[in-house]
Amino acid sequence: MALIEGRNPVIEAIKSDRQIDKIMISNSSKEGSIKKIIALAKEKNIIIQYVDKNKLDEISQSHSHQGVIAKVSEYKYFELDEVIKNIKSKSEEAFIIILDEITDPHNFGSIIRTADAVGAHAIIVPKRRSVHITPIVAKSSAGAVEYVPICKVTNIVNTIKKLKQEGLWIAAADMDGQVFYEQNLKGPLGVVIGSEGFGISRLVKENCDFTVKMPMIGNVTSLNASVAGGILLYEVFRQRNNGK
Amino acid sequence: MALIEGRNPVIEAIKSDRQIDKIMISNSSKEGSIKKIIALAKEKNIIIQYVDKNKLDEISQSHSHQGVIAKVSEYKYFELDEVIKNIKSKSEEAFIIILDEITDPHNFGSIIRTADAVGAHAIIVPKRRSVHITPIVAKSSAGAVEYVPICKVTNIVNTIKKLKQEGLWIAAADMDGQVFYEQNLKGPLGVVIGSEGFGISRLVKENCDFTVKMPMIGNVTSLNASVAGGILLYEVFRQRNNGK
Repeated sequence: MALIEGRNPVIEAIKSDRQIDKIMISNSSKEGSIKKIIALAKEKNIIIQYVDKNKLDEISQSHSHQGVIAKVSEYKYFELDEVIKNIKSKSEEAFIIILDEITDPHNFGSIIRTADAVGAHAIIVPKRRSVHITPIVAKSSAGAVEYVPICKVTNIVNTIKKLKQEGLWIAAADMDGQVFYEQNLKGPLGVVIGSEGFGISRLVKENCDFTVKMPMIGNVTSLNASVAGGILLYEVFRQRNNGK
Repeated sequence: MALIEGRNPVIEAIKSDRQIDKIMISNSSKEGSIKKIIALAKEKNIIIQYVDKNKLDEISQSHSHQGVIAKVSEYKYFELDEVIKNIKSKSEEAFIIILDEITDPHNFGSIIRTADAVGAHAIIVPKRRSVHITPIVAKSSAGAVEYVPICKVTNIVNTIKKLKQEGLWIAAADMDGQVFYEQNLKGPLGVVIGSEGFGISRLVKENCDFTVKMPMIGNVTSLNASVAGGILLYEVFRQRNNGK
């Protein structure tokens, strides 16, 4: 059993047709988007349970439930083969994000949100040493976790090799390499984002086709991982859409 | 009295010559970058106090002090006139960020970090309804708060008018307008970033010269504020550096 907390994430969960067991709403929350949630839930015959705000505070994991928590079945990760098959069936150019050991749930959620915005096909995370789909991740993703397929793999290096066989170019975001906007990022692409500040493990990096860096002219030596990821993902978007 | 928490923020604070009253280090933290902090502090004759880890846990506001907390004098905000004078004296093209009521300290810190990376001259925040410089902000900025001048102003609209008189173009980041990478962002520029997901107040927006948007082709309708800000700031950087 997993929880989805907060108004927008719950709205997105209802809209996405995800299996929702029940929605708990605080007795004291009746206005604004709560009304919308109630209407949507009724439309889909989802059970609504009105509870004391304290009860929500107690079970909340994100500590910002905004008066509403949905109980859903555990997140079902996607199979990479399924994702690849789906991309092929739509004859689209693959755009896949690989997170090498991102551990901060806000960063993970924020990257899922950006991935949805740029139309990425999937996010790949390693089974070990990585963050999982928690209520904080779902909340930080603004509900996008319901739309972007997330695959969990045993070995990132093997996955990169597989994606290369499928015709993808694999870009590593790191501190060296070509300035990101001077690198050709068109075509089927996998982007590897490391933990905080572009830290990608050596073996993963060695298996990438090329490395791109964010130029930095100030004093700090790295960016927040979700910000760096966002900048890079939108550069891919820009180039794919023939931006000037 | 303010606190700076965590290894990198403390290192940046020492390096930046900010007035530090003392640095408290956990008895149990002796390895790695703590050694560097001790060496730097000794070099600058800063008092080091070894304390129990519990003591740090108790006074920590960010709850991720990594074994080190520095006590410093309160953050001294910059005067906008001072910043403008400084830009003129260096004959540089102004690059100023205006935050219209950002309230999340992680987002604020993250924007400061990106602002430092792209060489922005200052960040302007309103006196009311905005986040202040807290230990969480300093930590999220990875220490960049020591390098990017931050100005607090009474009225954002008046400040925008003043910046226009100084020759800056003012861009509002919002949900409509020109796609951000299709808009000319060269020349002296002020970028207005709203609260979560580009929410800029009506009056502020009306006083901007133009509006730029992030195209979004997925299901969510906004990005995390610090991610959206980061993407926009790097687009300004790219155009200024004649990126392809």
